Amino acid sequence: MKLKRSERLIDMTQLLLAHPHQLLSLTDFSQRYNSAKSSISEDLTIIKKTFESQGIGRIETISGAAGGVKFIPKANKEEALAFAEEVRVQIEDAKRLLPGGYVYLSDLLGNPSILRRLGKIIASGYQEGEVDVIMTVATKGVPIAQAVAEFLNVPFVIVRRDSKITEGSTVSINYVSGSSERVEKMELSKRSLKSGSKVLIVDDFLKGGGTVNGLRSLIAEFDSTTVGTVVFCESGVYNHQVEDCNSIIYIEQIDTSKNIIKARLGSFIEECEFS
Amino acid sequence: MKLKRSERLIDMTQLLLAHPHQLLSLTDFSQRYNSAKSSISEDLTIIKKTFESQGIGRIETISGAAGGVKFIPKANKEEALAFAEEVRVQIEDAKRLLPGGYVYLSDLLGNPSILRRLGKIIASGYQEGEVDVIMTVATKGVPIAQAVAEFLNVPFVIVRRDSKITEGSTVSINYVSGSSERVEKMELSKRSLKSGSKVLIVDDFLKGGGTVNGLRSLIAEFDSTTVGTVVFCESGVYNHQVEDCNSIIYIEQIDTSKNIIKARLGSFIEECEFS
Repeated sequence: MKLKRSERLIDMTQLLLAHPHQLLSLTDFSQRYNSAKSSISEDLTIIKKTFESQGIGRIETISGAAGGVKFIPKANKEEALAFAEEVRVQIEDAKRLLPGGYVYLSDLLGNPSILRRLGKIIASGYQEGEVDVIMTVATKGVPIAQAVAEFLNVPFVIVRRDSKITEGSTVSINYVSGSSERVEKMELSKRSLKSGSKVLIVDDFLKGGGTVNGLRSLIAEFDSTTVGTVVFCESGVYNHQVEDCNSIIYIEQIDTSKNIIKARLGSFIEECEFS
Repeated sequence: MKLKRSERLIDMTQLLLAHPHQLLSLTDFSQRYNSAKSSISEDLTIIKKTFESQGIGRIETISGAAGGVKFIPKANKEEALAFAEEVRVQIEDAKRLLPGGYVYLSDLLGNPSILRRLGKIIASGYQEGEVDVIMTVATKGVPIAQAVAEFLNVPFVIVRRDSKITEGSTVSINYVSGSSERVEKMELSKRSLKSGSKVLIVDDFLKGGGTVNGLRSLIAEFDSTTVGTVVFCESGVYNHQVEDCNSIIYIEQIDTSKNIIKARLGSFIEECEFS
């Protein structure tokens, strides 16, 4: 079926958005719309310009016979700051305080609109080809891992603290929980991570840092490399010893007696080079 | 900034796709693009027609002073069948067989492209306003819950089998694991589900049915209603006793001695009224 330019633009936009970091060939577009490649190229010029002006992301052009275009989602600084500030205000709500100085976050991490924006912002910190796989630990890191994976178009793997028979053979390590100083165990299904992978770690909350250090050791066990670590909330209340870990929100103070949570924007928002 | 029609169409398409089941007002569009409402209406007519012809979904128009449009993602039958068939073939791969007749699925449930299509297809079975919240059980149901939640624009909640101090007070129930006949416990944070909610249950694998029955009891404890239950894989090998549960894939046979997994399309794909 032959579509008009206006209809092609709409359909190409949805295809690009649904396939981030994936090469879509000019030939396929040309066949799909029964249109000349020159018309498709003109369409893509309009889309590229609009994606940039509206802060949707970049369109990269790959020339040559096997050429085409790739959509690279990129949050801009303004969007990242607005998102982090909105979340910061919500996190300071004293109703989130739980006994023991914990902070209730499950509503935020079960909200698809927050996850979509969070995923786009974290993904914006990494270049094409820089990350092969996202790793997190069950359970609350999973939604963040999935959101980032979607924007980077890479798979995610879930490390577990308990053994599950439905995973097949696993590689396990022992690690010291930073906050409670207990020795714990975590494991990952052997077939879920290829050796030589470049792994981005994401998690919901950084306290003592034991979990992140454990994940890094596990990645090393798989002869793979940690290319980054990003957590949603980092707590400065506990003196963690994790290098090179970035956060979206940094919790400065938790006071259960005065009913106060104080937070500021985390290092990822401050340091990341957004578009 | 004033955009041309072609640029408006691209930006409106991305806004609609990023906000499913959400009312976007004509007034907001008109201000965003510094254009007359009549022009915006014409744009929306083109988008509506293209979304339908390309199988992206429906655009619903709400008229009146507070009027606007809503994007309702809808998979068509062809897309649903193609997806389920692609997954079925992958699941029949004998390498997925694990000791005890389990099937390895973690790669599929960690693949953002599969999750996106799965989420769209499951969401297509439910009307606007029919579902308030998605419920699943940790860990492997979480990616499915998130994918469906994204397309229905509702939150998801995670029921846990282990207690976590970071959830606050919880409601717990005991249930009988259908396959192993053990009594187990599951719990959900009290503040994560309002009474009177309409809940859609999703999970990765249905075996004995104990987990699904447990989730339904838990929903009743919250004075809420189960409006549907959809699992990714249903195993016919175990004689489960769960009514009104639909599946994407139905596993007919698991034979570890002959190295065979046999699967067919599940009831959700057969029975759902796609667009």
